[in-house]
Amino acid sequence: MTDYPQLDGFRGGPGIVRLIGHRGARGVMPENTMEGFEFALNAGVRAMEFDVVLTREKTPVITHNHHLLNAATRGVDGNWLRGDELKVAELSLSEIKKLDVGGLDGRTIYGKRFPDQVFMSDVRVPRLEELLDFAAQPEGKDLLLLLEMKSEPSNTGERRGCTTIVDAVVEAVRSKGLEHRTILHSFDWSVLEECARVAPEIPRSYLSQMPENEDEPGEDSQKSVAPDFHSLETSIPQAVAAAGGKLWCPYFMDVTPDRVAEAHELGLLVSTWTVNETDEINAMIDAGVDGIITDYPGRAQRILLGRGLVW
Amino acid sequence: MTDYPQLDGFRGGPGIVRLIGHRGARGVMPENTMEGFEFALNAGVRAMEFDVVLTREKTPVITHNHHLLNAATRGVDGNWLRGDELKVAELSLSEIKKLDVGGLDGRTIYGKRFPDQVFMSDVRVPRLEELLDFAAQPEGKDLLLLLEMKSEPSNTGERRGCTTIVDAVVEAVRSKGLEHRTILHSFDWSVLEECARVAPEIPRSYLSQMPENEDEPGEDSQKSVAPDFHSLETSIPQAVAAAGGKLWCPYFMDVTPDRVAEAHELGLLVSTWTVNETDEINAMIDAGVDGIITDYPGRAQRILLGRGLVW
Repeated sequence: MTDYPQLDGFRGGPGIVRLIGHRGARGVMPENTMEGFEFALNAGVRAMEFDVVLTREKTPVITHNHHLLNAATRGVDGNWLRGDELKVAELSLSEIKKLDVGGLDGRTIYGKRFPDQVFMSDVRVPRLEELLDFAAQPEGKDLLLLLEMKSEPSNTGERRGCTTIVDAVVEAVRSKGLEHRTILHSFDWSVLEECARVAPEIPRSYLSQMPENEDEPGEDSQKSVAPDFHSLETSIPQAVAAAGGKLWCPYFMDVTPDRVAEAHELGLLVSTWTVNETDEINAMIDAGVDGIITDYPGRAQRILLGRGLVW
Repeated sequence: MTDYPQLDGFRGGPGIVRLIGHRGARGVMPENTMEGFEFALNAGVRAMEFDVVLTREKTPVITHNHHLLNAATRGVDGNWLRGDELKVAELSLSEIKKLDVGGLDGRTIYGKRFPDQVFMSDVRVPRLEELLDFAAQPEGKDLLLLLEMKSEPSNTGERRGCTTIVDAVVEAVRSKGLEHRTILHSFDWSVLEECARVAPEIPRSYLSQMPENEDEPGEDSQKSVAPDFHSLETSIPQAVAAAGGKLWCPYFMDVTPDRVAEAHELGLLVSTWTVNETDEINAMIDAGVDGIITDYPGRAQRILLGRGLVW
């Protein structure tokens, strides 16, 4: 046990590597949906990594990008959205709730990345509050929340206007009494600085991705809001520790055993994303990470068990 | 609509190929479990193919083989069963209910066949009645049941002592008023003959597999109880039609467009099993089957959608 009990669910150790469901279980179920979170939890994955963006009226909703992906969104007529993608910040909650995010358009590059994802209908973008309510109920009592806050790529000023999302998220988490089950998580370290100021009782997770690594298709790049890692005067783990972080979440291609060891010496936990292929999962276990964020929790469970590990 | 409304859920047509969840969704979830059936139904697959065997006290339970697979069964101590596999007919319901069928032993050939299946704990072999109760509730109202009855391989006499399982299954289905949602299904055509006699109001499905095709690892062979297809005086579809069958369920390696067309001319519906790989699913769509029984409903859905089809 620690001052932050939720960290125990992200801490590896002898015989243990933690699994974190990426947007629920994107390989199997529609991402960032209540259906996906419930599936992953039902499958024995306690921790969920998911993404929060604000609507026009500043309601936090769970969706990955600032724009709704046409490849994953159908309109009220049942057809895929086309043309310029809709910006969440310009939509009302009621407008968003009319859209169906239960399936992927298999003709798109994004859709082809997840060929086994089930195709559902009448699935809605959840409000953050819906997931928090579920976590507060008996059936959701085991859930841990790795809550990613998206900041605007255009918010590149010193404070970057990040207080709105921080305030909205922290208020929601506190209103459900889930401070001990949540970790605040972002690529935008200035957002996390704001979190440290307004919610020191909630631990923070620092995402990183070296700029030379390719983005995966269909993902909003968050590199523009992340620190310039090449110009840091220290290593990334040192910078996370200096910022008061508890968890460091590097892109899996940036992970080495030495970097993990360094993070552990600094008292950090390390969870890496998004690790889906068998070889990659094995390599991350070998590198000594505490946790693996994956779209395929079943596959990762089976690999762990095959190596005598649990999650 | 027909006299048997459940058949509509198995009938293909222009733009439609039906999907049937094989033991729920074995590629993703533990097979023949309530958790698996609920997953598949939630994913929009209405029809489930599953297997019924009797316990020592003649209670119908849902499990595939006459013996519980060691590769899929843990004892009360949490360890995999070892040695001679337990025979369901020799176990009481309470003994079976102590066993955990929530995961696969990945070291086994059977376990390796389904590397993405999630690993759950405290998952029990369901009684048939549990699934029927679920189907009778509002949340299960869309469910259609392709209920396979296993007969003893040793029952090779004329009547083969098959009345016990038929009586138990028919009584259970009738007691829940689900005759219009069920199809009785077997490799043992003498069991189906008995069904015709005692439950003419429930349509019947005739399984076939040519003996030259390999069994998949971990499956009880049902070839010994099936007719000798090579010695039939007619084609298999003709024999199914002559027996009063409504559905013919050939092994996918036995399917040809001509055989499907012949079955359709005879007024039969054709569902084929167990079709998991992309090429196989495409070939079965090309062959004109009405339905595809698959362990991977998400994958099959996506392939259908990619071809402009629904299920």
